[in-house]
Amino acid sequence: MRAEIIAVGTELLLGQIVNTNAQYIAQGCAGIGLNVYYQTVVGDNRERLRQTFELAASRADFVIVTGGLGPTQDDLTKDALAELLGLSISIHQPSMDKIVSLFRARGTEMVESNARQANLIEGCEPLSNDNGLAVGVALKHEGTHYVLLPGPPKEMKPMFDRYAIPWISSVMGEEAAPLHSKMLKFAGIGESNLEHRLIDLIEGQQDPTIAPYAKEGEVSIRLTTRAVTAEEAQRKLAATEREVRSRVGDHIYADSDVPIERVIVLQLAEAGKTLALAESCTGGLVSEMITEVAGSSAAYKGGIVCYTNEIKRNLLGVPAELLEGTGAPGAVSAETAVLLAEQVMERIGSDYAISVTGVAGPAESEGKPVGLVYIGLAERGRGAEAEKLQLSGNRESIRLKAAKHALYRLWQRLKK
Amino acid sequence: MRAEIIAVGTELLLGQIVNTNAQYIAQGCAGIGLNVYYQTVVGDNRERLRQTFELAASRADFVIVTGGLGPTQDDLTKDALAELLGLSISIHQPSMDKIVSLFRARGTEMVESNARQANLIEGCEPLSNDNGLAVGVALKHEGTHYVLLPGPPKEMKPMFDRYAIPWISSVMGEEAAPLHSKMLKFAGIGESNLEHRLIDLIEGQQDPTIAPYAKEGEVSIRLTTRAVTAEEAQRKLAATEREVRSRVGDHIYADSDVPIERVIVLQLAEAGKTLALAESCTGGLVSEMITEVAGSSAAYKGGIVCYTNEIKRNLLGVPAELLEGTGAPGAVSAETAVLLAEQVMERIGSDYAISVTGVAGPAESEGKPVGLVYIGLAERGRGAEAEKLQLSGNRESIRLKAAKHALYRLWQRLKK
Repeated sequence: MRAEIIAVGTELLLGQIVNTNAQYIAQGCAGIGLNVYYQTVVGDNRERLRQTFELAASRADFVIVTGGLGPTQDDLTKDALAELLGLSISIHQPSMDKIVSLFRARGTEMVESNARQANLIEGCEPLSNDNGLAVGVALKHEGTHYVLLPGPPKEMKPMFDRYAIPWISSVMGEEAAPLHSKMLKFAGIGESNLEHRLIDLIEGQQDPTIAPYAKEGEVSIRLTTRAVTAEEAQRKLAATEREVRSRVGDHIYADSDVPIERVIVLQLAEAGKTLALAESCTGGLVSEMITEVAGSSAAYKGGIVCYTNEIKRNLLGVPAELLEGTGAPGAVSAETAVLLAEQVMERIGSDYAISVTGVAGPAESEGKPVGLVYIGLAERGRGAEAEKLQLSGNRESIRLKAAKHALYRLWQRLKK
Repeated sequence: MRAEIIAVGTELLLGQIVNTNAQYIAQGCAGIGLNVYYQTVVGDNRERLRQTFELAASRADFVIVTGGLGPTQDDLTKDALAELLGLSISIHQPSMDKIVSLFRARGTEMVESNARQANLIEGCEPLSNDNGLAVGVALKHEGTHYVLLPGPPKEMKPMFDRYAIPWISSVMGEEAAPLHSKMLKFAGIGESNLEHRLIDLIEGQQDPTIAPYAKEGEVSIRLTTRAVTAEEAQRKLAATEREVRSRVGDHIYADSDVPIERVIVLQLAEAGKTLALAESCTGGLVSEMITEVAGSSAAYKGGIVCYTNEIKRNLLGVPAELLEGTGAPGAVSAETAVLLAEQVMERIGSDYAISVTGVAGPAESEGKPVGLVYIGLAERGRGAEAEKLQLSGNRESIRLKAAKHALYRLWQRLKK
């Protein structure tokens, strides 16, 4: 079966944003064996929207639209499609109730235009919006299937994955021979090193395919195969996974797309242990990552952002002579990293502690180069140790790599 | 005049890559006042290419195509267009010479298919490829103007900027008046409330245009006008900006695309004042945002992530009877927010302090609903106060909105 993807928004036509939604939807379609023949971007204009829908409907079994479901007068997607198909628009009461109760909880007046987000097209199925107000649409009409999704990615993606894909798959029936993939997540190893150690597998790949990805501070590999049943897929993926694990298994911290901080929170919670943090150059980033994990309060007690030497002295008891003066190791040193980890563990009363101190840039500090970072790791009853890193990239990238590496060190300790 | 952008490539339809080329070309068109009405992605298929070109030519003055100029049998852009227009294809000798000499320099045999990259369409002007082998095409035919560019961004971008844009501008003549825009950044006001207060301006907009954007926790407005000179643009933008400021100026923290944390760091540094943070539900996010700003150590001393009640008691001296027990206000309360801000200001020795305590979810806490957040703000010599918020969204979104709102409160205080 054939699909077309239509993204609605003048900001796309002006080049103000890049069309990542089309890529996301295209990947999802590929994942269930649905062929995408065209992608189109069209502005917030009723007549051009109508023409675009009409053309797509003449060519495709599925017309998947993203954008234009919001509250403003610019948001015309539902109106334009309803007009084209000669269908009426009406309010979806559960969505309307959600909007009303949200505004009530906020204690602010609901602006009338917000009601537009609860609109549905006659005869459609509503698609729930778990991260926003605009309800989505799944509609079969004269042999063509329409899916209307919101534009903001954080609303579009869950609606597409949770509600649109199952609806599309049920329409496709047996034609939906899905792609199955498995993600292996790595820590403490760079992309080029990882590729080097798997190069023969990557170059000789057929089925499953092996695709390495690098995001800032993290590397992952996706193994992908196409199969009708999950069992068949699992069998095909398992052999390749075994081979990868035999070479670089020490660095695999998860076999699904989870961040390392989530794994660490689980490790700590299962062991009944707690963590504290002392962050200098990362400025709260490690703490922010850990607390982004729901339920992290079971494992994480808290931390101190010791951004100045004054705070390192006053709140964490690092002696002035260690931090400043001729010949002193300085704030960016193994000695300070060790002391910060030990002290924050003591003061917060945790079982483990990590410290991060370094030069994030843009300028050098204490005569030390940008990218020099020390990670301290303390464990109750085992003392503390520090590791020296020389990281590359801009300020943001150095901070992120330092944070991820600190988490990698803790993960390594905890898995023992 | 009207333009359409067509990107050719099956890898786009499969979602393997994101269509950054369309964005780049769209920005370039906006920059010279050329209106883009549609963007299309189509695969490497001769018939569908031909149909796509035909449709675009029927609607646009400029059809700008990227991709499909390479050496393989999949690269069909020139052939499909020549076939549609009934024109012949022939070798462009300088491009051919370049290909031949490149292979000679490499010492490898030239594969015959590489010659395809030197192909030109009858009657066109060649567009030089400074970073690759495939020559581009600029062609006027029966009132429509075609521009064919390579797909790889490092080849496409210089060809577009250096050769295609000048050619398009010369065709447009005086119509090529560039767009000028100005960004106004807002804090402490939601998108729908902002729109509500500007609705007549937005609905009646002509020149300049007024476009509101919302990203997590932040709203902005872009004013855009078309003008030949910067002075003319400024004059046109200023009148609209004045009107916007007269209504919602209290919430405008910047007139360029900078985050509020950068403005705050500047405000503090200029006043020679310092900041400390006590974060509970945001877990270090505010601290991370502030320290992402290069030079923030001049204004930010540090903070305490008091993720558990134990830390609120032990490191920040919040009395146990305030936090726990029947009838106690609890950790998520105005009382605790005030005390956290006061205490962290004292202990860190700063001039200002912010505290954030709330329920980020997913589950309620202390019997209080997800999204309930208190922001504390302390100023040396002026004591502390707290504000109550009821935020919506998931855990990530609540944390982000709480952090941005805390920064908004501080900005508001500092600008006085």
